[in-house]
Amino acid sequence: MKTTKFLMIAMTCVAGLCAALPASAQFAKPEDAVKYRKASFTVMATHFGRIAAMAQGKVPFDAAAATANAEVVAVMAMLPYSAFPEGTHGTEKGSPKANVWSERAKFDAAAKTMQGEVVKLVAAARSNNLDALKAAVGNTGKTCKACHDNFRNE
Amino acid sequence: MKTTKFLMIAMTCVAGLCAALPASAQFAKPEDAVKYRKASFTVMATHFGRIAAMAQGKVPFDAAAATANAEVVAVMAMLPYSAFPEGTHGTEKGSPKANVWSERAKFDAAAKTMQGEVVKLVAAARSNNLDALKAAVGNTGKTCKACHDNFRNE
Repeated sequence: MKTTKFLMIAMTCVAGLCAALPASAQFAKPEDAVKYRKASFTVMATHFGRIAAMAQGKVPFDAAAATANAEVVAVMAMLPYSAFPEGTHGTEKGSPKANVWSERAKFDAAAKTMQGEVVKLVAAARSNNLDALKAAVGNTGKTCKACHDNFRNE
Repeated sequence: MKTTKFLMIAMTCVAGLCAALPASAQFAKPEDAVKYRKASFTVMATHFGRIAAMAQGKVPFDAAAATANAEVVAVMAMLPYSAFPEGTHGTEKGSPKANVWSERAKFDAAAKTMQGEVVKLVAAARSNNLDALKAAVGNTGKTCKACHDNFRNE
């Protein structure tokens, strides 16, 4: 119930952001976009990492903590993709490859797939079922990896 | 209505995070905490800046965009304060001063004041009233500045 409400509102929020702030026009300078997208990935990865640690048995399973972390992931997952203006690819580890732009539809689809798995991650966390959480962490992690393998310098 | 729901859930979320992950114990290394808190402030400042630009007449007022941005600010506002482990003060511009820890109760109170103003910022954005938004941006900005003046190397 709470999950549904949260996600509906989060989706409304992102829809508002996307509609009102198309493409990368909202960043004054490309370096601002780069800083912002790195920051949003950092926050997302931190909170996803805490859930993954539970799934891997490194820390005790706590459904409330998993849910809180998953909800932060769900918000963060929607933010970085408006912050890839043309010309901000790189060659150093962690930077995006040029095919983010030459294969933009594929990149956007990969982002959407990840966001869909994150919705399921929130539901799994709320279900208070460790096996469900493990499965959702695995599926979400695969979407992270798929995008990194295709679009990020490793 | 949506605001209330969003904030109730966001508050539930942060309460979960705070309860489950006290203090700074959730970061393996102090530098992870520093990177995370900087990242969350970067994302928060980006979205607050977009609302401030509307309040200042630099971009057209758009209540839906203001609301979406304010909701992101509301989530981000709750994140950084678990990421100030002892010993992570500095002297360079933007780093926290040592009194974050020697006056921790005052620091935490300042954070709470800001979070309270951000709740009002979301409500003002949703009200579709530019004057209300301007007032809320001003009040929120004052809480940012007060904390920076007291606790941050400028």
